Amino acid sequence: MFTLILELLGTFAFAVSGFRLASGKQMDWFGAYIIGLVTAIGGGTTRDILIGLTPFWMIDAKYVLVTAVALVVSLVFRERITRLGKAIFLFDSIGLGLFTVVGISISLDAGLPIWVCIVMGTITGSVGGVVRDILLNEVPLLFRKDIYALASIAGGLVYFGCLLIGLPVDVTAIVASLTVITLRLIAVKYHIHLPQFNIEK
Amino acid sequence: MFTLILELLGTFAFAVSGFRLASGKQMDWFGAYIIGLVTAIGGGTTRDILIGLTPFWMIDAKYVLVTAVALVVSLVFRERITRLGKAIFLFDSIGLGLFTVVGISISLDAGLPIWVCIVMGTITGSVGGVVRDILLNEVPLLFRKDIYALASIAGGLVYFGCLLIGLPVDVTAIVASLTVITLRLIAVKYHIHLPQFNIEK
Amino acid sequence: MFTLILELLGTFAFAVSGFRLASGKQMDWFGAYIIGLVTAIGGGTTRDILIGLTPFWMIDAKYVLVTAVALVVSLVFRERITRLGKAIFLFDSIGLGLFTVVGISISLDAGLPIWVCIVMGTITGSVGGVVRDILLNEVPLLFRKDIYALASIAGGLVYFGCLLIGLPVDVTAIVASLTVITLRLIAVKYHIHLPQFNIEK
Repeated sequence: MFTLILELLGTFAFAVSGFRLASGKQMDWFGAYIIGLVTAIGGGTTRDILIGLTPFWMIDAKYVLVTAVALVVSLVFRERITRLGKAIFLFDSIGLGLFTVVGISISLDAGLPIWVCIVMGTITGSVGGVVRDILLNEVPLLFRKDIYALASIAGGLVYFGCLLIGLPVDVTAIVASLTVITLRLIAVKYHIHLPQFNIEK
Repeated sequence: MFTLILELLGTFAFAVSGFRLASGKQMDWFGAYIIGLVTAIGGGTTRDILIGLTPFWMIDAKYVLVTAVALVVSLVFRERITRLGKAIFLFDSIGLGLFTVVGISISLDAGLPIWVCIVMGTITGSVGGVVRDILLNEVPLLFRKDIYALASIAGGLVYFGCLLIGLPVDVTAIVASLTVITLRLIAVKYHIHLPQFNIEK
Repeated sequence: MFTLILELLGTFAFAVSGFRLASGKQMDWFGAYIIGLVTAIGGGTTRDILIGLTPFWMIDAKYVLVTAVALVVSLVFRERITRLGKAIFLFDSIGLGLFTVVGISISLDAGLPIWVCIVMGTITGSVGGVVRDILLNEVPLLFRKDIYALASIAGGLVYFGCLLIGLPVDVTAIVASLTVITLRLIAVKYHIHLPQFNIEK
């Protein structure tokens, strides 16, 4: 139940982030829907294929439906969504935190080693945005700026730290999600980022 | 037998559509072959990976061979193929109709629920063209204009409508394919398309 | 043991080739690391997903670690790596030869037919570079110039030729790898390439 609410919230947030980036790029409604859907389910689908599971959205229609609801909401409240403009990273950050924890949890259930669980959490949180950027024909934002995947990795480390000191799983999930979200918000607010990579003069 | 002919025709049509878009883009023959091959088998491969099947072209060499034949035909008859220029969407449309039905049929055999079968039909018909556009470094055509995936979805609905009223599977497959092809041709002829997506001023 | 060394060398070489192309493109260190990692493990991951195996790097952390070592080496010796500038294709070529043989060997163990093994060898050697170019938002180099995948295919044919005349597997692997590397180097040195593909005036 708790995981379910997390997943639906994260799906909605990621879909809206996809719609916002698709907007104004000569896409039609269907194209925008697919961009939002891929942003929302791309990470989890990649995780499921790597682990060898049936992709989660094929078993349960609600992720595809939540994205459709998000599209309608975006179209109806387009004015208000515009005013949220500068908060686009907030949607991204919440989705990132929630999906990271969901990804870790599913990987643990699949019996994967801890480091693979952390990688899968990061993939669940990040790959949707990467595929979105590829479809929009841009170099993925993830590779260029801000702390993004690193916040996800840090959240994964906190997750297993919490389990190690004996916290219950629900508390662990909340703490790890908040860690990811907080790190991302702090990094953006204070312009904390990694150095640019440049090995040739 | 019937399905086989459909698949080979669809493969040929999609491969040629890939060659046409690859032409004149500084690609060599091998690059063009891969673009045509990916256009032809990309949708079915995505479907098989999502369902958890071995990709169809690994079990049976004929799809890879048909694409090679299509390449030779395209090179030998390049004059005539040029004259077919304005008919590029015809190839695409036939492939779309045939692949949609093949995808639904395979998904049904795999025991998937109806809505997933329709999604898989659409993926089988559409994803090859999306991967082609990604490789050619363009925003997928699918997202930008015309009724394309929607025709595929409509064909899927017609497919299950036909089964519901008790039509035999072969007739169902023909009716659904023709629905997809007709919808696509009508949409292009009368410039029917979805509204552009724009949620920010 | 022999295969292991081949794989680690190939991983290092491919990662460095990824770093070099990522350099100077407004990427941060993490982005560069992912580009290098994807270049190094993208082909093998694609092969494993197509065959239905758990991706090799999830079972064994050393590929992810070797890429991290390669990143540190690239940053520390950036001066010297710059001087290697014109030798970028050498890294690519060695990785191509080694990965082709590893891919064939794994596909043989999976009981695949010979032609699929050769395709899988080529995928193992080539797809990492294709995904790297997609992420960098460029038309894949593979499709545009030089003999690349064709060298890999030729190496695959040599591989099965060697087995046919009864050479031991280790010798076969060495001969096939050297074939790929030599063909690629000769093709670049003498500007041997396929004709450009152009079917429209």
